[in-house]
Amino acid sequence: MISIRGYIERLSLRAKEASVLLGRTPTAVKDRALLAMAAGLESGRRQILSANRRDLRAARAKGISGALLDRLMLNPGRIDEMARGLREVAKLPDPVGELIHRWSRPNGLKIAKVRVPIGVIGIIYEARPNVTADCAGLCLKSGNSVILRGGSEAIRSNRAIFRRLESAALRAGLPPGAVSLVSTTDRRAVEFLLGQVGVVDLVIPRGGEGLIRQVVAKARVPVIKQYKGVCHTFVDEGADLKMAEEICYNAKVQRPGVCNAMETLLVHRRAAPSFLPAMARRYLEAHVELRGDARTRRILKGLPVRPAAEEDWATEYLGLILSVKVVGSLEEAIGHIRRYGSNHSDAIVTRSKPRADRFLREIDSACVYVNASTRFTDGGQFGLGAEIGVSTDKLHARGPMGLEELTTYKYLVTGQGQVRK
Amino acid sequence: MISIRGYIERLSLRAKEASVLLGRTPTAVKDRALLAMAAGLESGRRQILSANRRDLRAARAKGISGALLDRLMLNPGRIDEMARGLREVAKLPDPVGELIHRWSRPNGLKIAKVRVPIGVIGIIYEARPNVTADCAGLCLKSGNSVILRGGSEAIRSNRAIFRRLESAALRAGLPPGAVSLVSTTDRRAVEFLLGQVGVVDLVIPRGGEGLIRQVVAKARVPVIKQYKGVCHTFVDEGADLKMAEEICYNAKVQRPGVCNAMETLLVHRRAAPSFLPAMARRYLEAHVELRGDARTRRILKGLPVRPAAEEDWATEYLGLILSVKVVGSLEEAIGHIRRYGSNHSDAIVTRSKPRADRFLREIDSACVYVNASTRFTDGGQFGLGAEIGVSTDKLHARGPMGLEELTTYKYLVTGQGQVRK
Repeated sequence: MISIRGYIERLSLRAKEASVLLGRTPTAVKDRALLAMAAGLESGRRQILSANRRDLRAARAKGISGALLDRLMLNPGRIDEMARGLREVAKLPDPVGELIHRWSRPNGLKIAKVRVPIGVIGIIYEARPNVTADCAGLCLKSGNSVILRGGSEAIRSNRAIFRRLESAALRAGLPPGAVSLVSTTDRRAVEFLLGQVGVVDLVIPRGGEGLIRQVVAKARVPVIKQYKGVCHTFVDEGADLKMAEEICYNAKVQRPGVCNAMETLLVHRRAAPSFLPAMARRYLEAHVELRGDARTRRILKGLPVRPAAEEDWATEYLGLILSVKVVGSLEEAIGHIRRYGSNHSDAIVTRSKPRADRFLREIDSACVYVNASTRFTDGGQFGLGAEIGVSTDKLHARGPMGLEELTTYKYLVTGQGQVRK
Repeated sequence: MISIRGYIERLSLRAKEASVLLGRTPTAVKDRALLAMAAGLESGRRQILSANRRDLRAARAKGISGALLDRLMLNPGRIDEMARGLREVAKLPDPVGELIHRWSRPNGLKIAKVRVPIGVIGIIYEARPNVTADCAGLCLKSGNSVILRGGSEAIRSNRAIFRRLESAALRAGLPPGAVSLVSTTDRRAVEFLLGQVGVVDLVIPRGGEGLIRQVVAKARVPVIKQYKGVCHTFVDEGADLKMAEEICYNAKVQRPGVCNAMETLLVHRRAAPSFLPAMARRYLEAHVELRGDARTRRILKGLPVRPAAEEDWATEYLGLILSVKVVGSLEEAIGHIRRYGSNHSDAIVTRSKPRADRFLREIDSACVYVNASTRFTDGGQFGLGAEIGVSTDKLHARGPMGLEELTTYKYLVTGQGQVRK
């Protein structure tokens, strides 16, 4: 009988040992490994697609369909995308060793705060096999060992991808254990991984709220997470209503299934009568279901607007549903967002600088927008080059997380014999 | 019957509400409040000392003595020190609102990363009543509400200090709930506090390893902690042995009961014969008990050196005991520290720049020293102005934590109608 606990312990310790070497691996070696991994995916396309077909067959046999099946599916284009992603990460500047700050003390001690890798990072994710390559690339570039644990539906695809990544990484000179895949689908593996205190330095769960809540409930190691994105747009009185319409349409409709899409539209009561009817018609044409408060439904009388229930205000629909509320003031909008929001991304459309500033100051979200769509909350859109995820936590990292957010720092203190008086 | 759970929930929610207001309170108002709090402690000296005498009486009646009683004891000098501490924090720059980084995107979006308070911070501590004032000052200055939970032995002193702090803060214009004290000694209060997910944003436990492990085991909110300081000094071959002696003496003897004191001395085998005998005699004169490995005991034959057991290498003595080991190489020293250390503070004494650089790079501790005493790991010594503690965690904050470490950031994104393509 194989002990799952022992397997995870060995995997984690090997990753820890690798992280010591990886932390001092030169940028050029890491970049060469990333390029080799990209080439490995391309040359292994046939094996990866064949493994993926077996995953898809098994998934269909289990009755899986629709969006989940689409997320699981690979094709040559998606493999090329993974390879391109690795090549792009290779081009990004290496955050490791960066001097954050340096100063001297009156006693002559020199203190340098420098950026270092976190150590061992576990990634727990669901059906998308491309996460395997994307996360491996970002963790390795930032000098971290990575332990990957994907969903059981994707196990064959993940194993095939991992085999190509690992052999390329080893040949390029990365230490064994720099990248690992939990190759069992036994659910206890996740629990043991989440209990590797002092060995696994950070776990990032990527997936739906259910997965994330499970991880948080069981984790004894640090976790950075994004629970959900209940994102708001507030259309202020006096806003440019044409601009507001474009922003609100984009935030809801352009890609409704993602965390930075808008879920609740708040409209100032003075803007509502002129703004809401045209906006609502545009939404309805795009097949957006509207759920409104009493004032919204009065203004939109004659249009199909269901009454919004209390739970609507806190719901991440991840689809073509929008809750709409008319508010009496900027304060009411801020209060609503503070109460029901998820500290992810919230926007105001306004012409008033003081009101914009107040919104920016008082909304306690990772990303606060003025006159732009919340859909920009994304590492690529922010110019970070890539992202390992978005954090709705407040500690360590908030919002889009790129390479820099996969590092920590240490203090290097150099003296000439100083002792404390 | 009072519900402890309800009490903690109300306290936490009130702190959350206060944090919204506190986050936008001008620096001048916060500083005025800190100065008023300092004056309040001074003018309340008589009441505070009288409450403290009752705590001391109760502690003696319970058989408490020695170091714990000393930590509990206040006198006019210690009250002055608390007041001075608050005045010093008032003088420090306000981290809130600081622009960390600003850039523009090709589409014209302007992104600013700005420093903001974390929100509500809980401090769980033991017998020292001065922590009440010190932590309140640091949290308020950084714009955070603070919930204080001190040890039950100090409850009367803490209540008296808190009354002065709170009334001064309110009169100076801080919102009610900006500073709170858990005024019950019921242990369940801590558990409920540690479960206030989404309300309490961070808990910092301050005290012995036992307290910290209890907090970590029960916490469902984020915790930043310092487990222990098993700090090392490695005396390299070719080191300036006179400098090494001063550093090693200082690191062990100057104040042995604190986290940044040395617990293990590592000596390169080529330095050991000339270094250890004189060093050992100096330690023995200072009443330091020595525990050595076989090579150390051979070199120090005739001197009272007990054999070190395996567990000695991982022990934080917090007293006049030192474990000593002779190592064959720099690698062995680094390996030993990585295995037994606590990622706190470790030092090398060397004349070789490449070996110093290797030590700095490969030791995975918050603070790594070359030719200086580990005793400098301290917010004041680092020039942070003050410290709320030292972190041995890797996420969010490492090493001495000052005002900046009590903040997080958010992204302010300003556009002119940008939508995502």
